[in-house]
Amino acid sequence: MSAPFPIRPRLLLGPGPSPVHDRILQALARPTVGHLDPQFLAVMDDVNAKLRHVFGTSNSLTFPVSGTGSASQEAALANILEPGDTAIIGVNGVFGGRLAEMARRMGAKVVDVEEEWGRILDPERLIQAHREYPAARLLAVVHAETSTGVRQPLEDIGSYLAGTDTLFLVDTVTSLGGIPVEVDPNHIDVCYSGTQKCLGVPPGLAPITFSPRALERIRSRKRPCQSWYLDASLLSDYVGEGSERKYHHTAPINMMYALHEGLVMVEEEGLEARFARHAEVGKRLQDELQERGFTLFAEEGHRLPQLTSAALPGGADEAPLRKVLLDRYDIEVGGGLGPAKGKIWRIGLMGAGATNESVDRLLAAVDALSD
Amino acid sequence: MSAPFPIRPRLLLGPGPSPVHDRILQALARPTVGHLDPQFLAVMDDVNAKLRHVFGTSNSLTFPVSGTGSASQEAALANILEPGDTAIIGVNGVFGGRLAEMARRMGAKVVDVEEEWGRILDPERLIQAHREYPAARLLAVVHAETSTGVRQPLEDIGSYLAGTDTLFLVDTVTSLGGIPVEVDPNHIDVCYSGTQKCLGVPPGLAPITFSPRALERIRSRKRPCQSWYLDASLLSDYVGEGSERKYHHTAPINMMYALHEGLVMVEEEGLEARFARHAEVGKRLQDELQERGFTLFAEEGHRLPQLTSAALPGGADEAPLRKVLLDRYDIEVGGGLGPAKGKIWRIGLMGAGATNESVDRLLAAVDALSD
Repeated sequence: MSAPFPIRPRLLLGPGPSPVHDRILQALARPTVGHLDPQFLAVMDDVNAKLRHVFGTSNSLTFPVSGTGSASQEAALANILEPGDTAIIGVNGVFGGRLAEMARRMGAKVVDVEEEWGRILDPERLIQAHREYPAARLLAVVHAETSTGVRQPLEDIGSYLAGTDTLFLVDTVTSLGGIPVEVDPNHIDVCYSGTQKCLGVPPGLAPITFSPRALERIRSRKRPCQSWYLDASLLSDYVGEGSERKYHHTAPINMMYALHEGLVMVEEEGLEARFARHAEVGKRLQDELQERGFTLFAEEGHRLPQLTSAALPGGADEAPLRKVLLDRYDIEVGGGLGPAKGKIWRIGLMGAGATNESVDRLLAAVDALSD
Repeated sequence: MSAPFPIRPRLLLGPGPSPVHDRILQALARPTVGHLDPQFLAVMDDVNAKLRHVFGTSNSLTFPVSGTGSASQEAALANILEPGDTAIIGVNGVFGGRLAEMARRMGAKVVDVEEEWGRILDPERLIQAHREYPAARLLAVVHAETSTGVRQPLEDIGSYLAGTDTLFLVDTVTSLGGIPVEVDPNHIDVCYSGTQKCLGVPPGLAPITFSPRALERIRSRKRPCQSWYLDASLLSDYVGEGSERKYHHTAPINMMYALHEGLVMVEEEGLEARFARHAEVGKRLQDELQERGFTLFAEEGHRLPQLTSAALPGGADEAPLRKVLLDRYDIEVGGGLGPAKGKIWRIGLMGAGATNESVDRLLAAVDALSD
């Protein structure tokens, strides 16, 4: 295969990556400079400031991890946990399960609080689990479960944990920039995300933020973080927290340009307007799918607008139709995972994809398929 | 800071990133598609095939890690080591030291074989260390020490280890695509690199390859890899080794386009021609610097052409002059690290930067500074 290899553009309505605006693609192509060039450090500082705004936090230690969403997920856990620590983890989908798996590999004692896929974790059950394991180092939930389309309530858990010594860790990979995350009001101690969902930037960086008490925990560790690459205590000097900008690793320069541009676009639109846009088109899609006989997978009252999971009318096999959607209409949607495999579509309306035009194009294709 | 933020292009003659050709920047800006889109999988498969060629290997499990060079370094160690394993590590610069630090964090017993910075590790000393610790799980060296400019001979160590149960792990972050690496002829079991050095691609991916016996070791682990994100046994299904392409994490799509384009350019030039180009301009720079009173830091006979470390004439303080080079001439070179801090420049002639024009521009600026 020689350059330029063929790439047919797709309308990205899967669980991510989401459609990338041309301004962001153009930012990617700006000239590469060094990772210690004052020009680049200024871009990174500005990215970090803009991330604080989107996260809803004043946390000083806020930056993009040099990897994709699962890298910041691993960074969140690895910086807090030491072998033997107890971690209470809510598991009602793939990403909660991944948190538990990662924590186990780190040598933590994991207390899984499980719930049926498609339902929220009852905050009272998580609080009860904490009463049984009050010395737990952290309690973790997924805010927007990409595998099910469920939106987890955070407020009650955060308020409760704020009065304990247990840190609150929240996965916002699919929520950041699409629905309010509000790290500080929700008393979240460690919060991480990805760029390729509601921020509308290609995959390759993964924002993370640590509260002052998370930072205190990191500083009082007995053993260093198992991962040198993801060690926040080393990274803090490079990302601008120390007195000197010390080299740690080579950051993905051009991806940082793209993230900057994505965050500029978030500011231009305004967070409230952006949340309203995601809410409106998501609601419309869910209504229209139900009218067409689709069955929504996530429980009512806790559905994410940006990620809709739905079983096809009449229990139709989803995979062949999804393939037609991609091959004939250049529209990507996702299939189900785990117990929902083969049963549902996962439809993302995220970032630049959260428009009525996306909904129109998808529904027109769906209607044509049913004819 | 609003878009587009100002970026002055620089001539990147530091230890990386190296200058990025416009074709590669344009590849970055191609439309983002999904990580399971057959179009993307075809690009990834082709990247993996092209990487085998550059690595000089027929290893089936060859792919880019979703992070920068230090991520593949961590992946190399984390996939092989379990707590309690012995790791023999050659340390004659920052990157050997980083290998040792990472291995310690993984719970390995590290046998450091140290050497003065600027000198190679005598293969006989490493072989001797192995005779003392014959049950060592791995022996690791850095092929191109970016902190010193030293080129480590590999052949004798590789041939020796091939007759033992110890795996040979080699850091080729700064050598891949600039000088011959030859994974198979050198009996290397785990070899990793980065994109932003002699491949001339922005930072954000990190090629790695595992030999069949490394893979066997991975499959016979007692405990899973400490890192879920970097676990080669999970990644192998996604990168094309398994019977089915299974989702693992979202790969950095646009960076993969860029790496593909970079590897196409390597093929167009031809590996031998590329090595000759790096060798010629590196030699010329080193000769010209010596004529100007610079003292080369790496020992004679073992100097990397692509990374020259040199103390300034008359023991001049390097940092202020390096700043002038950047601010007035838009040329980036690197400073010294560790014991060489404040004493040397590290000058990269890598990838698209390995040209006589780069040398001309740098020497003209150096001459102007000395006037």
